[in-house]
Amino acid sequence: MALTNRSPRGVFVPALTPFTADLAVDRARFLAHCAWLLEQGANGLAVFGTTSEANSLSNNERMQLLDHLIHHGIAANVLMPGTGCCALPDTVALTRHAMEHGAFGVLLLPPFYYKNVSDDGVFAAIAEVVQRVADSRLRIYLYHIPAMAGVGFSLPVIERLLKAFPGVVVGIKDSSGDWNNTAAMLKAFPGFEVFPGSETYLLDALRLGGTGCISATANINVAATRRLIDGWTSPTADDLQAQLTAVRAAIQKYPLVSANKAILAQAHAEPGWNVVRPPLGALSAEATAELMRALAALQFSLPSTSQQAMAPA
Amino acid sequence: MALTNRSPRGVFVPALTPFTADLAVDRARFLAHCAWLLEQGANGLAVFGTTSEANSLSNNERMQLLDHLIHHGIAANVLMPGTGCCALPDTVALTRHAMEHGAFGVLLLPPFYYKNVSDDGVFAAIAEVVQRVADSRLRIYLYHIPAMAGVGFSLPVIERLLKAFPGVVVGIKDSSGDWNNTAAMLKAFPGFEVFPGSETYLLDALRLGGTGCISATANINVAATRRLIDGWTSPTADDLQAQLTAVRAAIQKYPLVSANKAILAQAHAEPGWNVVRPPLGALSAEATAELMRALAALQFSLPSTSQQAMAPA
Repeated sequence: MALTNRSPRGVFVPALTPFTADLAVDRARFLAHCAWLLEQGANGLAVFGTTSEANSLSNNERMQLLDHLIHHGIAANVLMPGTGCCALPDTVALTRHAMEHGAFGVLLLPPFYYKNVSDDGVFAAIAEVVQRVADSRLRIYLYHIPAMAGVGFSLPVIERLLKAFPGVVVGIKDSSGDWNNTAAMLKAFPGFEVFPGSETYLLDALRLGGTGCISATANINVAATRRLIDGWTSPTADDLQAQLTAVRAAIQKYPLVSANKAILAQAHAEPGWNVVRPPLGALSAEATAELMRALAALQFSLPSTSQQAMAPA
Repeated sequence: MALTNRSPRGVFVPALTPFTADLAVDRARFLAHCAWLLEQGANGLAVFGTTSEANSLSNNERMQLLDHLIHHGIAANVLMPGTGCCALPDTVALTRHAMEHGAFGVLLLPPFYYKNVSDDGVFAAIAEVVQRVADSRLRIYLYHIPAMAGVGFSLPVIERLLKAFPGVVVGIKDSSGDWNNTAAMLKAFPGFEVFPGSETYLLDALRLGGTGCISATANINVAATRRLIDGWTSPTADDLQAQLTAVRAAIQKYPLVSANKAILAQAHAEPGWNVVRPPLGALSAEATAELMRALAALQFSLPSTSQQAMAPA
């Protein structure tokens, strides 16, 4: 469990996945969005997270998108793709694919269909992935989002995993929304790379040894998030945090995926961004207008998309 | 919404999926189990349900298992495979595969990763499947199991689906465990084929126009379940129901999948049946012994596996 000498990782963005009108993946727009996020300051991309509608993508769609990014110049070692599925063979296939392509690590949901499973069951599920992938490059970031997955990683399970797989299970995204849980992880496991699932807790986490954040709203506010990470010891840190928190609060009044997409659609004048796969639904025009007014009141505006990012080589 | 002149369907068994020691699907044992269930009186097989650990299987594993059954003489038209996944392309692929192979129908979970989704979102998810599969043979049985899936089918959604897709959306498995919900469906949608998800509610459902049941414990008690369906108007019906209910109650004190597997392992002297995929765990030896004693006290014994069923052509 002894931790590495790595410095804070920064902000990893669970990049939104755009779709065409007929619900196909829009690879070109996805690539442009990922390039733009990096250009805006993202330290990495946690592609295929909850915000990415990853669980609405087939495995082939995920693998093809990852290939597409790398083929078009996105550095593999900034990518932390989500690879946790309900079925062990799927999780193993996606994880192996990611590591073989040089990904920084994987963000791993526990199998999430069966509920009320035991800690032994969650441990066994992760252990099987580690053993079956059998790749010394494997780095696992656990994905704890119990309100969505219905299954999470308890502190005792994390402790067992750290003991069983040191240097392999290296971190967690804590999307519990419960700061006490994040703080407990930071205190219990020194050096374990804890990313709060919301920038609301970013400064608090950094001050306790946190490594950054992985947040839905970094899709539209990554530059400011990065500024806080770079300047978290500066006198302005609390002000930067307050701004981030206010923007996040305005957005999370709405369903996060649809709201983030609506903001991109508006700010980039690309209505295609509004398309989501069922069971999600696009934000209504009324709610979108209300949200944009709230953001404007916070002096928030989205940096424009550069030509370079829009048309990658 | 006018309903067919079909008679009650009977008992469909969500057949358990056996695994080898290294967690591979044991196709031979699965085939033998399915053949045995039909021999014991199952009217159909709802393969790839929750009890089947279907969500722990890859899509390829499901399709290969279905092919294997049909190739080895299980009639396709008694099969109601579970085909509902989180991702639309997966659900469409499995559903199309099932109908192309002549399945009786499919048992369709709503997409179950995203929680707190709207009725519009659930409706849209099913509508997309119907439109994309585009097969006149398609018959959908909705799979309502909110405690596990975290997403369910409300009565208003069912009503919309019946109006939009008459003759396509034809029934439901109600695993809410809430008799009031089952009764409400039976009363609201005459002719809609409602299968309670437990034989505990079988007789009550049949008396309100229910069409049978789809129950985990039918894996080990299908013959008695069938006797009640065949004799539900007879004077002995309430006694038959009481016996079924008692056996079910004894088993559902334990995790259902593991408990059913433990019973088969014991009764058939096939310890391999105890293997489950994580995150589920096998029933302990102690719990198994306790369960077997409880069943013995109820005069319950499992019919032995016939040589014929064990070694299908």
